[in-house]
Amino acid sequence: MSTIEIPNWLQNRAYLTPNRIAIKTDEEEISFLSLHKRVVKRANQLSYAGIKKDDVVSILMNNSINMIETIHALKYIGAVTVLLNSRLTSKEIEFQLSDSESTALITDHSFIEIVKLIHVRKIIESDFENMPEVECNIEEAFNLDKTDTIMYTSGTTGKPKGVIQTYGNHWWSAVGSSLNLGLHQDDCWLLAVPLFHISGLSILYRSVIYGIPIVLQVTFDAQKANEAIFTKGVTIVSVVSVMLSQLIQDLGDRSYPTSFRCMLLGGGPAPKPLLEACLSQNIPVYQTYGMTETASQVVTLAPEYSISKLGSAGKPLFPVQIKIMKDGILAKPHESGEILVKGPTITVGYLKREDATSSSIKDGWLYTGDIGYLDEEGFLFVLDRRSDLIISGGENIYPAEIEAVLLAHPLISEAGATGIEDTKWGQVPVAFVKLAEKQDVSVQEILQFCNERLARYKVPKYVYFVDHLPRNASNKLMRRKLVEMIKD
Amino acid sequence: MSTIEIPNWLQNRAYLTPNRIAIKTDEEEISFLSLHKRVVKRANQLSYAGIKKDDVVSILMNNSINMIETIHALKYIGAVTVLLNSRLTSKEIEFQLSDSESTALITDHSFIEIVKLIHVRKIIESDFENMPEVECNIEEAFNLDKTDTIMYTSGTTGKPKGVIQTYGNHWWSAVGSSLNLGLHQDDCWLLAVPLFHISGLSILYRSVIYGIPIVLQVTFDAQKANEAIFTKGVTIVSVVSVMLSQLIQDLGDRSYPTSFRCMLLGGGPAPKPLLEACLSQNIPVYQTYGMTETASQVVTLAPEYSISKLGSAGKPLFPVQIKIMKDGILAKPHESGEILVKGPTITVGYLKREDATSSSIKDGWLYTGDIGYLDEEGFLFVLDRRSDLIISGGENIYPAEIEAVLLAHPLISEAGATGIEDTKWGQVPVAFVKLAEKQDVSVQEILQFCNERLARYKVPKYVYFVDHLPRNASNKLMRRKLVEMIKD
Repeated sequence: MSTIEIPNWLQNRAYLTPNRIAIKTDEEEISFLSLHKRVVKRANQLSYAGIKKDDVVSILMNNSINMIETIHALKYIGAVTVLLNSRLTSKEIEFQLSDSESTALITDHSFIEIVKLIHVRKIIESDFENMPEVECNIEEAFNLDKTDTIMYTSGTTGKPKGVIQTYGNHWWSAVGSSLNLGLHQDDCWLLAVPLFHISGLSILYRSVIYGIPIVLQVTFDAQKANEAIFTKGVTIVSVVSVMLSQLIQDLGDRSYPTSFRCMLLGGGPAPKPLLEACLSQNIPVYQTYGMTETASQVVTLAPEYSISKLGSAGKPLFPVQIKIMKDGILAKPHESGEILVKGPTITVGYLKREDATSSSIKDGWLYTGDIGYLDEEGFLFVLDRRSDLIISGGENIYPAEIEAVLLAHPLISEAGATGIEDTKWGQVPVAFVKLAEKQDVSVQEILQFCNERLARYKVPKYVYFVDHLPRNASNKLMRRKLVEMIKD
Repeated sequence: MSTIEIPNWLQNRAYLTPNRIAIKTDEEEISFLSLHKRVVKRANQLSYAGIKKDDVVSILMNNSINMIETIHALKYIGAVTVLLNSRLTSKEIEFQLSDSESTALITDHSFIEIVKLIHVRKIIESDFENMPEVECNIEEAFNLDKTDTIMYTSGTTGKPKGVIQTYGNHWWSAVGSSLNLGLHQDDCWLLAVPLFHISGLSILYRSVIYGIPIVLQVTFDAQKANEAIFTKGVTIVSVVSVMLSQLIQDLGDRSYPTSFRCMLLGGGPAPKPLLEACLSQNIPVYQTYGMTETASQVVTLAPEYSISKLGSAGKPLFPVQIKIMKDGILAKPHESGEILVKGPTITVGYLKREDATSSSIKDGWLYTGDIGYLDEEGFLFVLDRRSDLIISGGENIYPAEIEAVLLAHPLISEAGATGIEDTKWGQVPVAFVKLAEKQDVSVQEILQFCNERLARYKVPKYVYFVDHLPRNASNKLMRRKLVEMIKD
């Protein structure tokens, strides 16, 4: 067994290809060397602020060069980084800080209000303007077995779990992706998805591992994204369905330049009409399948099959294996079952959640909980994400988490949540509640209660009052039957 | 510490991209799927012949599809492969078979005479024509820590040592190379260097890991190699200096097609006039530095520096670290010393030679014995292999420097330099030159030419005219054999 070390990614890039552009924004272009210098400064400032090797530090920021510098700087110091979703409520932030045992929270001005009452050492972006430096020991190499980042995901139980992502998980993800998509000297990746998501973070890492620039945008905006493709040399874009629809709408009659070579489409099964629209406009869409636990895409449709296997998520990246299990037996082609994934990009487990880890990862195989099948050639077709998972605008929402909040309301006795189709977001969450006997409460009150405890996108779009919830013989909520109640 | 497994490379390719071409020869084109099927058959035949998992098996063959099938088949079975140099004498073969404890020797008809008297189980290529099959357990995945191949190298001591190359060494070499050279969907690599050398074997492995074809040629022939570039879609060629000279000579006034993107130049320091000739003909030369112990190139000159750093071997591949040590201390920029290399492509050691291993590899660093320096930007300049160093009157003389001067003479086509014993100075340099066809030039003229370009002590004491220079199978100059020419 060998422990592999790779030279510090950004520092190595600054050595190998110092003058190549690392980041393009509307305001500036930064080379790998300048970025490295800024990161050294930031690391020294963090060192001044008392952050040291092996500390766990949370970041709550919007996409920005500042956020990128902070992410790299924590690596230079050798600290573990927790990436917090920018839409979390105070209570959710508090839980993740405490669960991860974060010693500090680095944030920017947008979040000052929301973190105001949280008891943790806070470093605000603007603090860095005049912060002194204390020279720190820069990590010269990254041990691939070491934890790099933690991202929280709710899972089925409702209580968010910290997914441990090692340096190796991220490294192998970048390598596996390049072996599939290729790597061109003029590649340039649009980063307009959140850096706190694996979709965004993995783009940042590919940039330093490949030595290619990113075009950094704070949030996704179809017009700006298209502009980056047309005028800033972007060759690869990562999107989810809702973004892709908007891009096509904004594109109108225009065609992308031939240099644009990959529209990487993740975030759940894509509607066929959308894929067909792309086909007719010659947009090279690569459907993918992946999740936080696999450090980004693990299955991608290779170029030569984008037409003949429309709707498939493709085949595994080179270092990855997949299989379908049905009732504990390997499924036959076209037989659907649970999707299992194995490979060096798979998380080592959930932070301090040995039970969840051992029930999800067995003998190296990750039990994704997602349903799908392999066709006779081994192409994966994803039928459904984790039976109850709601995917809204690319964000994962776990019904259990909404239900837990609803059940915390003193006047609600039973609650169920599920997703319904939505033309804009793909899906939106809706809630079904049974009130405690002889009690009355308004939808407004319930929504207000949720707003205080759940990120905006998790708050139910509609609340239905019902007399009973659909349950099976062992009283387990059958969430898929909830939708039928709306029809009734 | 994690043990990483990657799905069986060729089998995985046959699953992921079955219809892509794996091998092109003058006679046929074979897809990854057909190659896989042939290899399964070959593995079953080897299984019939009694070869089983963890056996050590030697291969003594010339480049051929048969050889490729055999190399893959041994991996399918899980056996360890020893690759024997085709120019070995019987005694040398016998030593390597015995030292590696090979249980069988697989060879082709060219070697029947030379292995006739060797006592080992032999399987001749033609035996496979009617050999029955016994179904074997195909290795579904390769453990990167497991030994894949063994290649013997003489080193400085004279007694050949078996260099252990793990699956991981080869994997990381392929990955490191692609992160530097990029990976295009239409890439195609010429394989005209011996498969028993790391230069050839690494091309075969890149082919299956990247999913790109190779054009397979038995031996290097400038005209055929150029033809492959012009008519068979070859985009990358691996050469040593003498091959490159021949390619340029054969090329004449033609220009390579723009699809040809990389001339990977290894096998020791290259003469500047050659590099300049390539520059003037727009041939994209990437100088590299590597050896059997590093599983191919570990340092390569990146595209953007091919002009400004002419003559440098470049910077390390992404996963690799280098440093220069002089008298046990880290050398300063421009200070020459021993080149040390670290990274996941470095051999775990020499077979059953713990002393040699522990004196060559310390704390993960390989002491290459080669001399070089890093400039102020960290570019490596390889001066010479330590064993070739000529020390005259206390002054260090690097043969490559003398050779570069000689090759700059318009009437000299090949040149070699070495040291001979001298009572006064310890050693003095002598030169061996091959003149361009039908040309004549006197020793005086050559010495005059050198005198104008080299410090007095570096000017050869004697100049010998020869018909050919001693080269190994990959056309690398064997300077130590030069002395024997004098005796002759």
